[in-house]
Amino acid sequence: MASRTYIIVGNKAATAPFHLNDLAGAAGRMDLLCRSVSAAFFLSHDLRRDVVIYLVLRGGPAPPRTIRISGTDVKYMSPDERNIAGLIRKALSVEDIDPRWVVSTPGIQVSSRDLVDLLQGLSREERANPFHLTEDGGPIDEADLGGYVTFLLGDHNGLTPEQEGLIDDWPRLSLGRTSYHTDHCITVLNHTIDMRAAKGR
Amino acid sequence: MASRTYIIVGNKAATAPFHLNDLAGAAGRMDLLCRSVSAAFFLSHDLRRDVVIYLVLRGGPAPPRTIRISGTDVKYMSPDERNIAGLIRKALSVEDIDPRWVVSTPGIQVSSRDLVDLLQGLSREERANPFHLTEDGGPIDEADLGGYVTFLLGDHNGLTPEQEGLIDDWPRLSLGRTSYHTDHCITVLNHTIDMRAAKGR
Repeated sequence: MASRTYIIVGNKAATAPFHLNDLAGAAGRMDLLCRSVSAAFFLSHDLRRDVVIYLVLRGGPAPPRTIRISGTDVKYMSPDERNIAGLIRKALSVEDIDPRWVVSTPGIQVSSRDLVDLLQGLSREERANPFHLTEDGGPIDEADLGGYVTFLLGDHNGLTPEQEGLIDDWPRLSLGRTSYHTDHCITVLNHTIDMRAAKGR
Repeated sequence: MASRTYIIVGNKAATAPFHLNDLAGAAGRMDLLCRSVSAAFFLSHDLRRDVVIYLVLRGGPAPPRTIRISGTDVKYMSPDERNIAGLIRKALSVEDIDPRWVVSTPGIQVSSRDLVDLLQGLSREERANPFHLTEDGGPIDEADLGGYVTFLLGDHNGLTPEQEGLIDDWPRLSLGRTSYHTDHCITVLNHTIDMRAAKGR
């Protein structure tokens, strides 16, 4: 299976423990981020071990927070929003969060990094073949998705101009003219990369 | 946009009002059905008006129940699991559910139909171009997805042999060798049909 990293920027997403019964409202569209995690990792009766996802949370009350989930080590995760939200809440409950990565539960780490710090700290592998998924990008059909790929996606409101500036040298790809939810984009990306890998290109 | 109907069979899914905090457990993988509804209808800041989804619920305590959601009329629906689960619970709260369709909230109807009755009652349009999505089907790349298409999908455990028998004359299509969650299949199907429609085939 082809390895991949997803970076999702949630400009409104809660940065302190939130109530699990109001993910879409008070927690700043945390529902969308939870479904994005679910889309990134879950197969039917299986979990993609070769996926890493970063959630850059930038809503109140303590931005920024970045959460890293690694399929290699993650445990106790189910595909439903409430379960994943519980794991994110647990990560945000860590005391004295600073720029260093701290493990909250197996495979899940939290830090006070913002997008700029996160991008600077990406591994060589993660920086090798990065793409910005955006509606006005080039058709994904024509892109080389071999080896390790990294995709950056915005939330329901997209990236700020400042955030766009940080990745203006990343190739821009699009899934077509229709505007999809972030989690649906990840599902389509996973399927597209799977199909390419199966065809050996 | 190309019109489409999705039929999802949830063999364990609750058939009476359930608790919103345990969709994946006691409600019989209702989380998966809710995400399937979300995947079927939601675009970024928009809703697919030309989609119909049927959820065939066959778990305890009062099977069968079938819920019909029509994008033409549906209101008050958000893409998060908890919101959609609330609308399904409301449908299951209707008194004296029988084989006739009864509206529970705008665009959502409930009946005591099982899969066999549902299939017999499909409209001529819905019966015109039906497909069974299953791992051992033919590659979707080669299928004609023009006009109105209907897809039947199983839940995490698939269809029973009896259910398979009801649609053994439907062409079988597959999204590849990887086994995906039902909601992820719907997302990929929507994207695939969108792309075909954009290319005019």
